[in-house]
Amino acid sequence: METKNTKAFGAAAADASLKEMHIERRQVTPKDIEIEILYCGVCHSDLHTARNDWGGTIYPVVPGHEIVGRVTKVGNEVTKLKVGDLAAVGCLVDSCRECDSCQHDLEQYCLNGFTGTYNGPDKHLGLQTYGGYSEKVVVDEHFVLKVPTNLNLAAVAPLLCAGITTWSPLRHWKVGKNSKVAVVGLGGLGHMAIKLAKGLGAEVTLFSRTPGKSQDAKELGADAVVISTDAEQMKSVKGKFDLIIDTVPYVHDINPYVATLNINGTHVLVGYLGDLNPMLNSVPMILGRKSVAGSVIGGIAETQEMLDFCGKHNIVSEIEMIKMQDINTAYERMLKSDVRYRFVIDMASLKK
Amino acid sequence: METKNTKAFGAAAADASLKEMHIERRQVTPKDIEIEILYCGVCHSDLHTARNDWGGTIYPVVPGHEIVGRVTKVGNEVTKLKVGDLAAVGCLVDSCRECDSCQHDLEQYCLNGFTGTYNGPDKHLGLQTYGGYSEKVVVDEHFVLKVPTNLNLAAVAPLLCAGITTWSPLRHWKVGKNSKVAVVGLGGLGHMAIKLAKGLGAEVTLFSRTPGKSQDAKELGADAVVISTDAEQMKSVKGKFDLIIDTVPYVHDINPYVATLNINGTHVLVGYLGDLNPMLNSVPMILGRKSVAGSVIGGIAETQEMLDFCGKHNIVSEIEMIKMQDINTAYERMLKSDVRYRFVIDMASLKK
Ligand SMILES: [Zn+2]
Ligand SMILES: [Zn+2]
Ligand SMILES: [Zn+2]
Ligand SMILES: [Zn+2]
Repeated sequence: METKNTKAFGAAAADASLKEMHIERRQVTPKDIEIEILYCGVCHSDLHTARNDWGGTIYPVVPGHEIVGRVTKVGNEVTKLKVGDLAAVGCLVDSCRECDSCQHDLEQYCLNGFTGTYNGPDKHLGLQTYGGYSEKVVVDEHFVLKVPTNLNLAAVAPLLCAGITTWSPLRHWKVGKNSKVAVVGLGGLGHMAIKLAKGLGAEVTLFSRTPGKSQDAKELGADAVVISTDAEQMKSVKGKFDLIIDTVPYVHDINPYVATLNINGTHVLVGYLGDLNPMLNSVPMILGRKSVAGSVIGGIAETQEMLDFCGKHNIVSEIEMIKMQDINTAYERMLKSDVRYRFVIDMASLKK
Repeated sequence: METKNTKAFGAAAADASLKEMHIERRQVTPKDIEIEILYCGVCHSDLHTARNDWGGTIYPVVPGHEIVGRVTKVGNEVTKLKVGDLAAVGCLVDSCRECDSCQHDLEQYCLNGFTGTYNGPDKHLGLQTYGGYSEKVVVDEHFVLKVPTNLNLAAVAPLLCAGITTWSPLRHWKVGKNSKVAVVGLGGLGHMAIKLAKGLGAEVTLFSRTPGKSQDAKELGADAVVISTDAEQMKSVKGKFDLIIDTVPYVHDINPYVATLNINGTHVLVGYLGDLNPMLNSVPMILGRKSVAGSVIGGIAETQEMLDFCGKHNIVSEIEMIKMQDINTAYERMLKSDVRYRFVIDMASLKK
């Protein structure tokens, strides 16, 4: 298969800093779209994969799955976009397209395993996929999204992961004008959850461990902020919420949040992968028909729906722009939660 | 308020055997129905409440919340039933009737707390309520159910708790002809879950710890039995089920069952109240949008729906009839799971 040498930025080993490197991208096949990457958001998964925190990283690794750019070439069977159009790519670049999940627009739950935008099994070149920290990317049109033209393009990038990760549960659990939604954690995901839930018409509350974030949360659209370490405040929202979007990425006690769910309410985990410690207690779940659930990113059709919704409602992420060469510093700052709320790489910096 | 002295069978203390006693029942008020109790099912809650296993029992206690009988008197505003009709009473005899749950036919989730059929706060007499181990019961017509006339009346009794407890989640999670349902545990609840899920058209699998129950489960309608202690068998149903009804009343590891849920599947606990030990792991929940939930009994409208459905589909419980005087022995046998699948008291025995 013909390939094209492409400039990128990645890590050669778990303990190596990210630096400039070259990778091979396939030439467009009939269904492919080639995109010049203009901006790429920086997700916590980028950092964890670069450092092999979850195991399974194949080096070299080129992170980045919040990709926006412009179409530079299309295969002869492509109908979705044409050269010059804006385009985006999120966390998935392939899936089996045949299983029950794929046939129901749930590629993120592909029963044969979706192909992640980076460090996934590349069916074309037989290697792992390389992400958005690069000049260009080549993706099957099915996995390419259209981008509303009225938004700040750089601030659209984080919608492709942080946005869809919170949008998908909001939609799956049917959040609308009469919904009461709470968000746990105010980071990249949490700030998008507030904006999107608000956009859907819900009453939105942020749970925060410290009072410092109240002003910010309200500016983002939250109707209220509840300090989760304050027993009185927690009691005041007992039985209130229809849906809680829990974006906290580390182990934490979810029992106090379950107590704030209304009858039939759901606490959905989107950030923490691991054992629920301390143990989840079933009593309030049984006595209130409450659920604890999980959700991961979203399907392609749903991602397009979210982008269109954001276009219509003028919703983008709050970002801090960085140069590609600043990525290692950005990772260090992310680990200290020192970012409001998402770093986005200006990919023009890679050309220098 | 005028009362009527009524023969009953109950416990005077946590460590006392149940024996004959007399209680006061109110005379019918305008909305009340008086029922001569013909049969009363024996639920695990009866035993636990009699022995104060959960705390909070007020003595004397008269258990019994699977009540069927015949109407002997009605208040002058009663429209639901008339003297001579069959009637049933389940786990609830009152609720606030005003809260959001009550207004949505979810009396079992009454935000002000429903009144249990026994050991609940009796709003009329100011004492605790007394259950179905008695000659008669007086209940507001809203909480009285109509009974199909084509069924074995004694075998209808367990539908009022074991039946509705499993029916409610089957309906809430929309089980139908294309559903794949699994049931964990084959006792009073489990055997009803199999029959009702099968009645709704689902493909039904029983999870059992031992092979001994296969024949019984299939006779009850199960399409398959999976031995949960057999790793190969568990692997063969990985990702299969839309809904798992978990009737096990003691602590157990639910992670192996979560693995058998399909995308969007739900594991619903109806039997075990306590901490989920070992800890629930969020990874399969997030990667498959799976839920763990709880559910308790059912609302009045839903209970009527279930009874009507059972009438139409000829579904009743499998029972072993006992005399009222055998109740203490029956409790001992229940503790050893030595019952297929529900004891029902022939209340004629109380008259002797
Ligand atoms: Zn991400
Ligand atoms: Zn698939
Ligand atoms: Zn019961
Ligand atoms: Zn109520």
